[in-house]
Amino acid sequence: MASKTSWTLPSPPGNSLDTLSVPTEKSPLHVSNGVAMRRKTMKEAEKPKKAKYRIVNGITFCIEGGEPQELMNPQAPSYIDYFWSDKGDRSGFDVIREKHVQGKDVIKEMMDFFKERAAIEEQYARNLNKLSKSTHGEQEEGTLLAAWKSLKAELRQRSEAHSKFASKITETIEKPLFEFKESQKTDRKHHEQLLEKSRKQLQSLDAAIDKAKQSLNGLVKTSGKMKRQSSINGDVKIGDDMKKLEATYNQAQRLWVDNMIAACRDFERHEEERSAYLKDRFLAYIDLCVEAQETTAQALTYSTNMVDNINKKADREFFIKKKGTGTLRPVDRVILET
Amino acid sequence: MASKTSWTLPSPPGNSLDTLSVPTEKSPLHVSNGVAMRRKTMKEAEKPKKAKYRIVNGITFCIEGGEPQELMNPQAPSYIDYFWSDKGDRSGFDVIREKHVQGKDVIKEMMDFFKERAAIEEQYARNLNKLSKSTHGEQEEGTLLAAWKSLKAELRQRSEAHSKFASKITETIEKPLFEFKESQKTDRKHHEQLLEKSRKQLQSLDAAIDKAKQSLNGLVKTSGKMKRQSSINGDVKIGDDMKKLEATYNQAQRLWVDNMIAACRDFERHEEERSAYLKDRFLAYIDLCVEAQETTAQALTYSTNMVDNINKKADREFFIKKKGTGTLRPVDRVILET
Repeated sequence: MASKTSWTLPSPPGNSLDTLSVPTEKSPLHVSNGVAMRRKTMKEAEKPKKAKYRIVNGITFCIEGGEPQELMNPQAPSYIDYFWSDKGDRSGFDVIREKHVQGKDVIKEMMDFFKERAAIEEQYARNLNKLSKSTHGEQEEGTLLAAWKSLKAELRQRSEAHSKFASKITETIEKPLFEFKESQKTDRKHHEQLLEKSRKQLQSLDAAIDKAKQSLNGLVKTSGKMKRQSSINGDVKIGDDMKKLEATYNQAQRLWVDNMIAACRDFERHEEERSAYLKDRFLAYIDLCVEAQETTAQALTYSTNMVDNINKKADREFFIKKKGTGTLRPVDRVILET
Repeated sequence: MASKTSWTLPSPPGNSLDTLSVPTEKSPLHVSNGVAMRRKTMKEAEKPKKAKYRIVNGITFCIEGGEPQELMNPQAPSYIDYFWSDKGDRSGFDVIREKHVQGKDVIKEMMDFFKERAAIEEQYARNLNKLSKSTHGEQEEGTLLAAWKSLKAELRQRSEAHSKFASKITETIEKPLFEFKESQKTDRKHHEQLLEKSRKQLQSLDAAIDKAKQSLNGLVKTSGKMKRQSSINGDVKIGDDMKKLEATYNQAQRLWVDNMIAACRDFERHEEERSAYLKDRFLAYIDLCVEAQETTAQALTYSTNMVDNINKKADREFFIKKKGTGTLRPVDRVILET
């Protein structure tokens, strides 16, 4: 099932940092935030002026009350809009990743649940079948014997219905769940790898920026004392390096944004598919319950008829015909004739 | 339930052989056969003339093609008409007695059958209840969690329905069967004792008749040789003793007939009651099956509704509201202002 979100698509593929120099185009997400791109030299803490962003775990976040950002999918709450921030060491991706893993765990639990459910039915069916083969009541004759037999036939049919129920639970619920679970795993691992790589790159670029700033600060102090040409030349070179670093960092951050969008899109789609699949399997299970119920109800109807047919007069006639010893009654004996 | 046979009632009570001398009244059964009471001196084998009866195990039976005998209950085949003859060592009473014992055995089998049936339900209910308490799916949220809970609620209700079914089988079928079985036992033992006593008396009277006849034969030979007054006197005395013996035997045989009639009547009534009781218990069992079926069907309807209510959008909103980390997206970092 494809998701029906309306959010803006991320940048086209090929934005790998390995081939990245200075970006020529911004990702669509950033185009809308162009206003926020006025230049600042220092981090918030180093300037008395009000900062427009704050850096958390190497990511440069827009701040509350800063430049306005519209939701990417305002029609409905979507992963794409609500998991951007890091909270402590925990990223938004961690949260939706955990949800995905939890979903996988529940599918596994569902497999176990229905495996156990099928086992209960299987045992019940076995016990009923065993009882249906018992010799109880076989001394009976006629309609009573027929009623006894119908009762055992009902047990046998009930047993078959529950045994079939058990097999169908295994076939149509438990086993397909395994395949479904496996099918989502590859996607999750792909996103985990991409996001981890993006975050590491951002963190090392963030560290490189800090180091470059320290060098620049050192140079500014020196140049303040010396005012020599060499330091001016160095300033220009450091400025060029910083510009390159800035572009690389921002491109890496945009790639991370793209990766997050892709992960949100896939994980949300997976969760929707999982929900639909579980609903579907639950309904299939209910159908199987109803089917088993109908079969046993039918068997019961047959047995009811046979029990209703019990006829004591017919059975007595049957017994008399089969076992009667004779109708001639005794007569008085005459020993001496008068 | 009283039997609705139309046969003639046996002689009034008090016909014990202990108080018996010569009968003054014949039992109603024998009144209708008065024609057959012409006097014969010897058994069939001892006379070339066509015999009107034959003796089997001490009982004097009317022979086929002898005096006509009407059925006592011509409206329907009844025990009262079809178990008079002995076949080898086996009497008609043995046959209906065996049927009675068989009936008792089947009631015992029925108790065992439903005891086992209840045990199967009890185990099934226990297993379902255990699974209904499992923690599967509890990581879910919102409508999916509600669906999971309804599935377990369905299991719990199913378990309760089957547990109740098991208790009711015990209460309304298994246990009452025991009381019913016991209630028929006393009557059977009573008839067994009476009939055994009757048969023993008849056999010893039959033996006494044989012995008296041998004495008479011996006397006839002697008197043929001697023609003396003493032998004539002896002949008269033996004749009187034989008459008394004849009367005692016939009275004992009539008592046996009465006992047979009473046994037939009670055993047939017992069998009819047993048949009706079994039918009744079978129907009660079927009602319990239907009741359990209806309860589980209701539980299933509730679960179906909750599964139908699974709403992936609502669940996503629930998750985002609870776990969302923030909507503010990253912005480009500006290291050097231009």
